Amino acid sequence: MHKDGKKSVVGEQVVKPYKKDAEYSYTLGAFPTFELLKARPEQVRKVVIDPSFTDQEKLISLCKELMITYEHNQKLISKISDKENCYVAAIFDKYTCELGSERPHIVLVNPSNMGNLGTILRTAVGFGIYDIAIILPGADIFHPKTVRSSMGALFKLRFHQYQSFQEYRNEFQKHQIFTFMLNGENTLTIQECPKVQLFSLVFGNEATGLDDSYLEVGTSILIPQSPDVDSLNLTIAVGIGAYVFTNQNKK
Amino acid sequence: MHKDGKKSVVGEQVVKPYKKDAEYSYTLGAFPTFELLKARPEQVRKVVIDPSFTDQEKLISLCKELMITYEHNQKLISKISDKENCYVAAIFDKYTCELGSERPHIVLVNPSNMGNLGTILRTAVGFGIYDIAIILPGADIFHPKTVRSSMGALFKLRFHQYQSFQEYRNEFQKHQIFTFMLNGENTLTIQECPKVQLFSLVFGNEATGLDDSYLEVGTSILIPQSPDVDSLNLTIAVGIGAYVFTNQNKK
Repeated sequence: MHKDGKKSVVGEQVVKPYKKDAEYSYTLGAFPTFELLKARPEQVRKVVIDPSFTDQEKLISLCKELMITYEHNQKLISKISDKENCYVAAIFDKYTCELGSERPHIVLVNPSNMGNLGTILRTAVGFGIYDIAIILPGADIFHPKTVRSSMGALFKLRFHQYQSFQEYRNEFQKHQIFTFMLNGENTLTIQECPKVQLFSLVFGNEATGLDDSYLEVGTSILIPQSPDVDSLNLTIAVGIGAYVFTNQNKK
Repeated sequence: MHKDGKKSVVGEQVVKPYKKDAEYSYTLGAFPTFELLKARPEQVRKVVIDPSFTDQEKLISLCKELMITYEHNQKLISKISDKENCYVAAIFDKYTCELGSERPHIVLVNPSNMGNLGTILRTAVGFGIYDIAIILPGADIFHPKTVRSSMGALFKLRFHQYQSFQEYRNEFQKHQIFTFMLNGENTLTIQECPKVQLFSLVFGNEATGLDDSYLEVGTSILIPQSPDVDSLNLTIAVGIGAYVFTNQNKK
């Protein structure tokens, strides 16, 4: 256990508040930390526990089983967390993945909000879509806020970032593309959901959606909605799209 | 126009940052302000505009048409708003509503997060459900954060707060009740969505869901989800429930 005031060093590095260009990030909170340990233990540098955390036994025994270093250090947690009631954190190495070529995809074009991105990851995994493409620029998928709002679902899925939609499309030419747009030409009713072998569901940015060039890259889809709202929230649109497509395209 | 430093008075009252027990609240931002003006002009005390707001003409002409007072006052906006890029606000009187007895309902039991509550209101209206019951305690439906995340959908719908689910149920005995629970006994597939005359979709709190007593009050429903997530986000669950039930129960 570190004494207060002693610097916490991981490898050769002093732990600092999260930065986008750092090689590591944090899980903040017990739930995402457990998910990380179970799904990607090889990425974990260290688990940090507030001595006043009441439910330590299970966590410590899992660390021991996985031979992962843990440390009691309230000061370090408060340094890397902006929330008050955070009792557990893990420091983990960022990593890259490749998408499954025979799996359905969700493609997020320029997602801007980390909370939304995390919720979308959680929702995608909830409905059995484990492959997520992000067209840059986009919210930081490894930011502790994204990790937290994904409830650890980030660690269960494969993601890959692309510089352009075209770059994504060149890599995956077999997928049938469905673009979700307010001026989509096909209304997504439950009865008429397309039945396809392999699909990519494409969603735009929270504020701007997909621009009209996306009308041409595949089948454009409109989720029907009352004229009393401007649009659905992005996370809700992804949830509906994922639910209906996965339900109507069960293998 | 008020000079800087002059206190802004509405009726006899000095405008202060929002308080839950105040008789008035605020819309922050142009979009929800327009929605308020269009849907409930009689509730509006005053519209406040930052002199640097670039799109004033339409707003001012709507105020004039509705005979609503407006004022240029950047200082007042910054006093009531916690966001930096807020250029328009309205001060409006809180109000009460009654739910439609022949309309489908969404019932939220102890919703705790204002952002989620607003998103749920926006989603409900998006799918054509305009009657929302809230079982207290619950997040403040008139808090500017709720209003903002509803994107003004709050003003298009009817809501009512109840001290208990029983109080709600006593008032609406004809509605068939569907409780969304992780241990729900009926799986919500698209094909087997219940077909009913009049429905209430009941959802629990973000952290705790509905307790087991809700297994007895109607038909319990499980939205199927992968074992890789703990649960769906509440707003997503409401979105899926509302979408499927309204699609499969079109009049």
